[in-house]
Amino acid sequence: MKKDISKIEKQFLNYVNKMMAYNEAISLMYWDLRTGAPKNGVDQRSEVIGMLSQEVFKMSTYEEMAAYIAELSPKHVQEQLSPVVRHTLAECKKEYERNKKIPADEYKEYVVLQSKAEAVWEEAKAKSDFAMFEPYLQKLVDFTKRFITYWGYEKHPYNTLLDLYEPGITVDVLDRVFTQLRDRIVPLVQQINESSHKPETSFLFQKFPKEKQRAFSLAILKELGYNFDAGRLDETVHPFAISLNPGDVRITTKYDENDFRTAIFGTIHECGHALYEQNISPELIGTPLCDGTSMGIHESQSLFYENFIGRHYSFWKRYYDLFKQYAPHFANVSLDDFYRAINESKPSLIRIEADELTYPLHIIIRYEIEKGLFSGDIEVKDLPDIWNEKYEKYLGIRPDNDANGVLQDVHWSGGSFGYFPSYALGYMYAAQFKHAMEKDLPNFDQLLEQGELIKIREWLTEHIHRFGKMKKPLEILQDVTGEGLNPDYLIRYLEEKYKEIYRL
Amino acid sequence: MKKDISKIEKQFLNYVNKMMAYNEAISLMYWDLRTGAPKNGVDQRSEVIGMLSQEVFKMSTYEEMAAYIAELSPKHVQEQLSPVVRHTLAECKKEYERNKKIPADEYKEYVVLQSKAEAVWEEAKAKSDFAMFEPYLQKLVDFTKRFITYWGYEKHPYNTLLDLYEPGITVDVLDRVFTQLRDRIVPLVQQINESSHKPETSFLFQKFPKEKQRAFSLAILKELGYNFDAGRLDETVHPFAISLNPGDVRITTKYDENDFRTAIFGTIHECGHALYEQNISPELIGTPLCDGTSMGIHESQSLFYENFIGRHYSFWKRYYDLFKQYAPHFANVSLDDFYRAINESKPSLIRIEADELTYPLHIIIRYEIEKGLFSGDIEVKDLPDIWNEKYEKYLGIRPDNDANGVLQDVHWSGGSFGYFPSYALGYMYAAQFKHAMEKDLPNFDQLLEQGELIKIREWLTEHIHRFGKMKKPLEILQDVTGEGLNPDYLIRYLEEKYKEIYRL
Repeated sequence: MKKDISKIEKQFLNYVNKMMAYNEAISLMYWDLRTGAPKNGVDQRSEVIGMLSQEVFKMSTYEEMAAYIAELSPKHVQEQLSPVVRHTLAECKKEYERNKKIPADEYKEYVVLQSKAEAVWEEAKAKSDFAMFEPYLQKLVDFTKRFITYWGYEKHPYNTLLDLYEPGITVDVLDRVFTQLRDRIVPLVQQINESSHKPETSFLFQKFPKEKQRAFSLAILKELGYNFDAGRLDETVHPFAISLNPGDVRITTKYDENDFRTAIFGTIHECGHALYEQNISPELIGTPLCDGTSMGIHESQSLFYENFIGRHYSFWKRYYDLFKQYAPHFANVSLDDFYRAINESKPSLIRIEADELTYPLHIIIRYEIEKGLFSGDIEVKDLPDIWNEKYEKYLGIRPDNDANGVLQDVHWSGGSFGYFPSYALGYMYAAQFKHAMEKDLPNFDQLLEQGELIKIREWLTEHIHRFGKMKKPLEILQDVTGEGLNPDYLIRYLEEKYKEIYRL
Repeated sequence: MKKDISKIEKQFLNYVNKMMAYNEAISLMYWDLRTGAPKNGVDQRSEVIGMLSQEVFKMSTYEEMAAYIAELSPKHVQEQLSPVVRHTLAECKKEYERNKKIPADEYKEYVVLQSKAEAVWEEAKAKSDFAMFEPYLQKLVDFTKRFITYWGYEKHPYNTLLDLYEPGITVDVLDRVFTQLRDRIVPLVQQINESSHKPETSFLFQKFPKEKQRAFSLAILKELGYNFDAGRLDETVHPFAISLNPGDVRITTKYDENDFRTAIFGTIHECGHALYEQNISPELIGTPLCDGTSMGIHESQSLFYENFIGRHYSFWKRYYDLFKQYAPHFANVSLDDFYRAINESKPSLIRIEADELTYPLHIIIRYEIEKGLFSGDIEVKDLPDIWNEKYEKYLGIRPDNDANGVLQDVHWSGGSFGYFPSYALGYMYAAQFKHAMEKDLPNFDQLLEQGELIKIREWLTEHIHRFGKMKKPLEILQDVTGEGLNPDYLIRYLEEKYKEIYRL
């Protein structure tokens, strides 16, 4: 008996390795399309990506997969499996059940709709014309609602969507923490607006040549512990990090010669994602466990680096001189002025350009809207008005058009409902991790000042990175911090930092 | 009946499209590995390439493929197929029969041997130690001999290998044309050696910065008609061209700051390959016909560009001023001196560094050796001596070690026997094509002088490129030139050119 199982275990792993091999090829094609693939090849490349993706989807629902699940799932069998195979099985089973419940024809129709909707959204955004996108968004919402009925849900239909990105997180949890966040951040944002101690920022926008920005980005990546033997830095329209395998985790960034913050903080943010992927345990390679455990935990790593390190006074105390080597035009800007400038907080319309204090409000708005869409309280046609009202209410500013409002994000055009909360969750996780880290590394600020960033990376690897998907997000949170989701740490961090900067 | 066939036709095309999609993904991974993939990801990437390659191989021999071949092959069915499907079927059938004849276990063993042998060859070459490589080469030859018995052969066992790369070419043909070539080139090489009018070449080796070489390479590619919307130029250790699809055909080159010829002529050579692939008819995309029809015809295009254009006096009459903008250190070198220098001919030990006159002799040596290996007249263990003797006999120089001799080429370590003749065939084809082209474009030299290279590219596309694998190599040769393989044109070209340069 034992021998048979080890044979099936091996076959199952081979089967899964093949799916992951296809995924690695797909990821490389995706990266290549964005970093310099010649434009005439794009159509055929998209076909190729489509064919390989379809193959992976099919493999996740084939009878062969069903047979592995049936044979390996019984409790007495599972006990004989290695932990890696046991967790791999659980992942495959979850996906099998999710994918199997959607009728094949319906799924195909949905995939076609997705790709059409993205193209339409792009045009609608360019023309700032929500009416153009509305019928597609309506269909995407309708499909998703149908999928929720296939998948089933507990308590709230939106919970099923949250589970896709952040297993364990529910509407109840989000309502609680987002209310706390909102109630503390909104007044702080108002106080800042009224503060007379606003930072001077004009010097940020001096011309900073791209090559110099790239050179500084490379230097900082090295300091942060990014391994260039397992990665590379390229330029794209939207920055991203992508893992092909832990030995090849690539970063891209965007250079704005009139605002260096785009590249520098973009690079540091993506570096946080990349450090996660570079440091996943090699034993997970070739399985679906070789990935960040959730969107939220992933975002906790990028935000940890971008905000808790990259916007920290001690970090710049260490690296401001280095920065000035690449940016000699900052020679006459003091460290204090620089620090206050890069931490300016100001309500703005565009999520991806928001500062760290107002950012959670952008997410909360999207959460409230998505929840309403799937509970049936909000209609697609009313979205622009609802969007604009919420911006006015929480941020005190109102979008002047849909491109700066409801059409700004790509997510909905791809049918990604339930994704947005991960950004704010990641932020709260990051603050909780930082608090836990300071028990082991009480001299956190000093480590930054001395450039010993590697110790911080090592701590994160030890407690988070290496596990990949072997632990669920809330399991990691509990193991690392000894508690569940708690927004207090983030609130306290923001209040302390911004009260000091704005002398409130 | 008719309706059923069109349904099977469609399914068959879908099946083939999928195989080609995998091939495109594999090609991109290959390109990426050579142009900048981080080293820590290489092992896993190789695994992924292996898994996808195995899948394509399997698909070529699955029962599903057998069923398509059985259903579509009958004459009355074939008559109803579109020409593209008919030729696709023929390609698949040929490959099916070839692959099916090798027992699966034996093939697997062979693939493992291949990858080991390449690694061993690399080390053996570095150490210049043939004895180290010998047992692997012996096994590769033994495997190949066994494959030949599985595949069968007519007249000479080597014919079966030639058919892999150049369908229609046999030992009889090669013996005839290579004898002619050898008998005319060897005395010419000797005359040149004894000539007192040798070109001055020292100025070729002045430092020429890489960035400037790259800029000039880009400018020349544009002039030659390389479409940058369907390609890009990168840097690698060994230059190559690779087609992902006709909308994405990439070139790489190598820069030697002390010898610009490496980059410039390498780039022009690869451009010839790339122009072929960029201009294959789009209706062939997604089928195995979307590829050069043979190694020889492919090489005819690269050599046409490298030699008949790139080393032509009229070409440099047009572009030497442009060249000097990038290479101002040539200001005092006259066009005539430059032309004679880049056409210097001198016996050398390394094939890939050989000039255009001595190059065919390097190929003839390899052909004679391979033919002997598979007829049983030559033993693997005797290869170094035989190699050195032939170099002495044909080129008048003797390798001082195996790295500069029998170990120099990668081909045998991958089991590619029968490939080498394609290089010389391509050269002869190119000379024949040029002769045919001059009937339509009698002002060939003038086109070069006026920089109207696009007309040459258009002629090649019209007569050669667009067909992909829709025509066999000798069919193209016959259609374009009205005759079969004829080495006279190449011989005449070389004799005229080199007698003038060396004033013989």
